[in-house]
Amino acid sequence: MNFSINRVAFIKALNVVQRAISAKTTIPILTGLKIDVTDHEIMLTGSNADISIQTTISTSNPDNELQIQATGSLVLSPARFFAEIVKKLPDRELQVDVADQYQTTIKSGNSEFNINGLDANGYPHLPEIDHEHQIELPAKLLREVISQTVIAVSKQESRPILTGVHFTLEKHLLAVATDSHRLSQREVELESPLTSPADFVIPGDSLKELSRMLDDEEDLIKLSLSENQVLFTFGETQFYSRLLEGNYPDTSRLIPNSSDTKVQFAAGELLAAVERASLLSHESRNNVIKLTIKPADKQVMITGNSPDVGKVEENLEPQALSGNDLEISFNPDYLREALRVFGSVPVEVAFTSALRPFTIKPLERPDEFIQLITPVRTF
Amino acid sequence: MNFSINRVAFIKALNVVQRAISAKTTIPILTGLKIDVTDHEIMLTGSNADISIQTTISTSNPDNELQIQATGSLVLSPARFFAEIVKKLPDRELQVDVADQYQTTIKSGNSEFNINGLDANGYPHLPEIDHEHQIELPAKLLREVISQTVIAVSKQESRPILTGVHFTLEKHLLAVATDSHRLSQREVELESPLTSPADFVIPGDSLKELSRMLDDEEDLIKLSLSENQVLFTFGETQFYSRLLEGNYPDTSRLIPNSSDTKVQFAAGELLAAVERASLLSHESRNNVIKLTIKPADKQVMITGNSPDVGKVEENLEPQALSGNDLEISFNPDYLREALRVFGSVPVEVAFTSALRPFTIKPLERPDEFIQLITPVRTF
Repeated sequence: MNFSINRVAFIKALNVVQRAISAKTTIPILTGLKIDVTDHEIMLTGSNADISIQTTISTSNPDNELQIQATGSLVLSPARFFAEIVKKLPDRELQVDVADQYQTTIKSGNSEFNINGLDANGYPHLPEIDHEHQIELPAKLLREVISQTVIAVSKQESRPILTGVHFTLEKHLLAVATDSHRLSQREVELESPLTSPADFVIPGDSLKELSRMLDDEEDLIKLSLSENQVLFTFGETQFYSRLLEGNYPDTSRLIPNSSDTKVQFAAGELLAAVERASLLSHESRNNVIKLTIKPADKQVMITGNSPDVGKVEENLEPQALSGNDLEISFNPDYLREALRVFGSVPVEVAFTSALRPFTIKPLERPDEFIQLITPVRTF
Repeated sequence: MNFSINRVAFIKALNVVQRAISAKTTIPILTGLKIDVTDHEIMLTGSNADISIQTTISTSNPDNELQIQATGSLVLSPARFFAEIVKKLPDRELQVDVADQYQTTIKSGNSEFNINGLDANGYPHLPEIDHEHQIELPAKLLREVISQTVIAVSKQESRPILTGVHFTLEKHLLAVATDSHRLSQREVELESPLTSPADFVIPGDSLKELSRMLDDEEDLIKLSLSENQVLFTFGETQFYSRLLEGNYPDTSRLIPNSSDTKVQFAAGELLAAVERASLLSHESRNNVIKLTIKPADKQVMITGNSPDVGKVEENLEPQALSGNDLEISFNPDYLREALRVFGSVPVEVAFTSALRPFTIKPLERPDEFIQLITPVRTF
């Protein structure tokens, strides 16, 4: 293997695959970066067994200034160390040259590094993907679906299936997450529906990492499936995640069809009041705040309380309210995280009773997105 | 106590004194914020026993929108909690009202917090300062003196006096720090010298915190002394630090008067090469890099080495070199930190022999600033 390349282009690709590489792994070779050089491109691979990322640098893009003198494959470990070297090299270009026994020389300007590489045959193979189950989504929409659902993913390993987001694909894409205290569901109409339905569970952590990578993407993201892996393709990059095994619980029956008390708020204003009230609930052992709703008096009051520290009371100014009087207590952190994904749009909060879950929906397009929070019994 | 105030002005003052307040303290009341309200101003005090910060908010500045209805003193604990409340309040103003038993009501818009305060008589008194020993320094110059010396302060508690910077004041201000592996010394001519000399040792941590507070200051900083405290005054703020007790070692004899090998570099270029070489030394147990200097061949080579990972070699391009051939090994982190405070100016590195300390000075005004690094024996 022997190539020279523009340093900035190489760093950009390294930064992409490094997202998948962890120093803590049970498979030692996965601390490394895999480099495959063929006639016309370099492929970089990083993996932590849950997530694998591949990206290619092609000779066809003149910005890469890529010149390949000899092909080959190699693993450089730890990847972090190799990336630090490349970032600190003095020149605009760098040259990588691999000799016997994977002895690797990296030259740039007056600087010459000699480091030990590893045989790439020891690196795990990435899964084969079935390109039959395949959809395309705009990057912005996929980011939105992820941000709206990962908040409700469980952090407990006691029911592993709940640490993922459940996707159902047919005419629509339906994404649901619940940690059994709250639930978040987003629906998206697909422009080209699948010929046969598919359903699968992607780990929340994979989706968070994917979402960070999509920050600057504006194009369509391709989603393809295999039996136990999902592949997202965008630009020069392929992002693989394992799927969670097992059956996701049926969540459709959890969402109430009717309500007895409804209140409309600007999401941002309710959020600010919840954050104030939670300052006190966080100082108390049970972390609960209370909403007191009196539609006849046009009154909604939020209360937070800590026996040691003090209390806070605030009269809210809802945009509309109707239905029965209600006092309901709940964990403010669930409502805070739910409201944050709404931004500043108007929302409707709909209650059934003090011990039944309540829902939060955007006033416009309420069928697209619903969040559900289970209250806490305080009496 | 009863006052109303502009929230932004209050937050600004809170942020200043909070720098001194730590949640971890052996004196419980120091987790709190002390508020003293007199006829025309509010004084806020925070302290962690090592550092104390006081700042005043005056009715005379209309931006403060300060209206005092009743005077008094109070401690609110924990300070962090009170500050979070104030930051999250909804309105432009807030009102603080203290009733019996230090019950404190904070109102803003529709939001009303009730929290428990503490008797201010339980709060320690700040030291009395002798305003006889007093100098003034421009904020920018003081920041420079601090940044140039704190890098050499010892992190070991085995010799506590070395965890501070030693100041000697008379015609000049001389600031010296050493951790016994390296030394940094800065000299500043004083515009109005002291009538009697003074010397004292300020903890490095206090200076770092002070320096962060001076980031936006452009004016003169007043330095005053008491027997065991130093006070820096700027704007509305007073910053107290305890002094370290004990005799600082005589460092003047450590600085060599002559040298046998001299090399001139642009500080930034030498720094970049040292950072590259240290990538490998950091992977090895003894963290040492080597400079090989051959003035006759106009050659300076830097080498870093890790038996497990590999090695790096780089030919440097000094601006000038003279004297004897030399091979010298040292901890690259000391040289890196030393070079960082020089920025991009030209420096002269002067060596005596492979086992004697070497010095780094700015080519211009070499008497003002000197850094000294002890090499490591590798043979």
